[in-house]
Amino acid sequence: MPPRLQAIYRIRSDARSIEARARAIALEQSVEMPLAAVADDFVRAEIVGRVETVAEQGPDLFDVRISLSAATVADDPGQLLNMLFGNTSLHEDVLLYDVELSDGLAKAFGGPGHGPAELRRRVGASMRALTCSALKPQGLPPAGLAALARSFAQGGIDYIKDDHGLADQAYSPFAARLDAIAGALRGATARYVPSLSGDLDRMRAQIAAARGAGVNTVLVAPMIMGFANFRRLVWESPDIAFIAHPTMGGAARIAPPLLIGKLFRLIGADAVVFPNHGGRFGYSPDTCHAIARAALADWHGLRPALPVPAGGMTVDRVPEMLDFYGADVMLLIGGALLEARERLAEATGAFVTEVRKFSHG
Amino acid sequence: MPPRLQAIYRIRSDARSIEARARAIALEQSVEMPLAAVADDFVRAEIVGRVETVAEQGPDLFDVRISLSAATVADDPGQLLNMLFGNTSLHEDVLLYDVELSDGLAKAFGGPGHGPAELRRRVGASMRALTCSALKPQGLPPAGLAALARSFAQGGIDYIKDDHGLADQAYSPFAARLDAIAGALRGATARYVPSLSGDLDRMRAQIAAARGAGVNTVLVAPMIMGFANFRRLVWESPDIAFIAHPTMGGAARIAPPLLIGKLFRLIGADAVVFPNHGGRFGYSPDTCHAIARAALADWHGLRPALPVPAGGMTVDRVPEMLDFYGADVMLLIGGALLEARERLAEATGAFVTEVRKFSHG
Repeated sequence: MPPRLQAIYRIRSDARSIEARARAIALEQSVEMPLAAVADDFVRAEIVGRVETVAEQGPDLFDVRISLSAATVADDPGQLLNMLFGNTSLHEDVLLYDVELSDGLAKAFGGPGHGPAELRRRVGASMRALTCSALKPQGLPPAGLAALARSFAQGGIDYIKDDHGLADQAYSPFAARLDAIAGALRGATARYVPSLSGDLDRMRAQIAAARGAGVNTVLVAPMIMGFANFRRLVWESPDIAFIAHPTMGGAARIAPPLLIGKLFRLIGADAVVFPNHGGRFGYSPDTCHAIARAALADWHGLRPALPVPAGGMTVDRVPEMLDFYGADVMLLIGGALLEARERLAEATGAFVTEVRKFSHG
Repeated sequence: MPPRLQAIYRIRSDARSIEARARAIALEQSVEMPLAAVADDFVRAEIVGRVETVAEQGPDLFDVRISLSAATVADDPGQLLNMLFGNTSLHEDVLLYDVELSDGLAKAFGGPGHGPAELRRRVGASMRALTCSALKPQGLPPAGLAALARSFAQGGIDYIKDDHGLADQAYSPFAARLDAIAGALRGATARYVPSLSGDLDRMRAQIAAARGAGVNTVLVAPMIMGFANFRRLVWESPDIAFIAHPTMGGAARIAPPLLIGKLFRLIGADAVVFPNHGGRFGYSPDTCHAIARAALADWHGLRPALPVPAGGMTVDRVPEMLDFYGADVMLLIGGALLEARERLAEATGAFVTEVRKFSHG
């Protein structure tokens, strides 16, 4: 049998109940039936989840390590999520805290097709931090978004992503938006990153259109499109780099360093957006550090994914963020630049200058 | 402009902060930028989310109703989830509690293609409750699962679903499982409900194979496959009935009556599985009642979805469950029947008899 998968759950429970609780989760995430009803020897020996360790982390807080057969996952990223957390996600007091995979399973999923080095190469950047901003608000017509993109490019930004709320709406359909923005950026260094939406077929058509317009980086939401569909696109589109957005990630239930830093990377994200500490979201500095570390660490020989801290960032935080993350980062500032309105290009330029200054410092 | 979408969030917050918190969510779920940075009149008037009401529900607990432009959702079920809860799902203290849609948006998504009446017709049932069991444990070969199916059918069960953990694993590939089980059930009244897995293309191939084997009901996991891909299958497969499984539903963050009773129904589930109270999961009787009511209620002219309470149910609970849910229900008992092992057909027969007795009582 192939090596087993290790899932670590963080559970709120009293000490008296934790052993029974751990055994119940091991059954729930494998055979989903009472052990007494499992007659088959192979299933009892290999498929039933095993409680490997139970470790107290604090008062009424335990980490339980459960090993699962890698054969239950096969090569399906959706099934990976199903086996790791499917029914157990319905319990409010359990967090999926971490996962350890075999090299074989990691290679089967494959990780990023490009990673930080290629994201740098595409904008002619040296070993510095990259810069990114976002096209919003939704509701603007394509020409309005294209005007913003032109200003960002004038300011020298590296990547210009769609707000993750931009889909295929009547006021700014994907095709018209792509034409307008890719057209506005023709000849510029800045790269447009359109947001994919809809079902797998629609996304394929969007990638084909992007490619036709000379665009080779796209934004995806793995928790909305489904892990299996994301990975399918990664495999089908070796020329395209993917930036993963955490929308619908429900941070409270899957630990963010695992979901964003490891799992999004595992199934092919070249860069991962996440809410930086001290912005609009409650992630702690420790959580953010752990996300970045997980995205960049040596891990089963997979390419790293570039961390993209975001969510209410401002230019005056650039030195502190570069100090915190180092140069392996893409800094994303959206709303705070857009507040400059008609001086957007200058505000963008100040952002870019600040990043370059400190990256070379 | 079309009527607006109403999202209701349940928020833990002190009274002093709730107004600001509500405004922040209204921005986050629409334009995702400071209001001061929104220059466009149309966007300010129509696209920016509006705080409609703030109602105290208890100490430090508030329901905030925010209206969103339906144009931001267009016709995309994935985008519906993105606009309702995308980034806000990353806040631990906010629950997406309920949603109100316009008739137009409900019709655009379409709801179930069949619903309870057709599920009854397919097994020749009158207005009684339906019965269901589950094929498990995973790890059994196709012949082992087929033997279980044969016993369930001998016992007179209506629907036999795959455990939601059954995917396309080496020990029981989808195609071989389908052949074995559909073959075992040939001539029986009982209907096999195979579990779909993988990306959209794989699921399409699985549906085509099911159809070829005379199977016209399938199990899906909307939270894993992605809402848009589920709805695409519903539209492409008008002959197929879909039973939705709540795996990865993360009950703590989207209220179960909304997610399972309304949203799964909205995008096409003919029946919805959920954890009944007093079983392996912590749902209260009130929550279960609300799920069933939401699945069955008159709602924008959509067909109802049949409630399927499950998760550790036993035959001795049948009278109580029928009393609680009425006849518009499919009772699902898995592990408790499988514990009977070689007497599975008799145990199934006792379950079926009990349901028929009380359904006609």
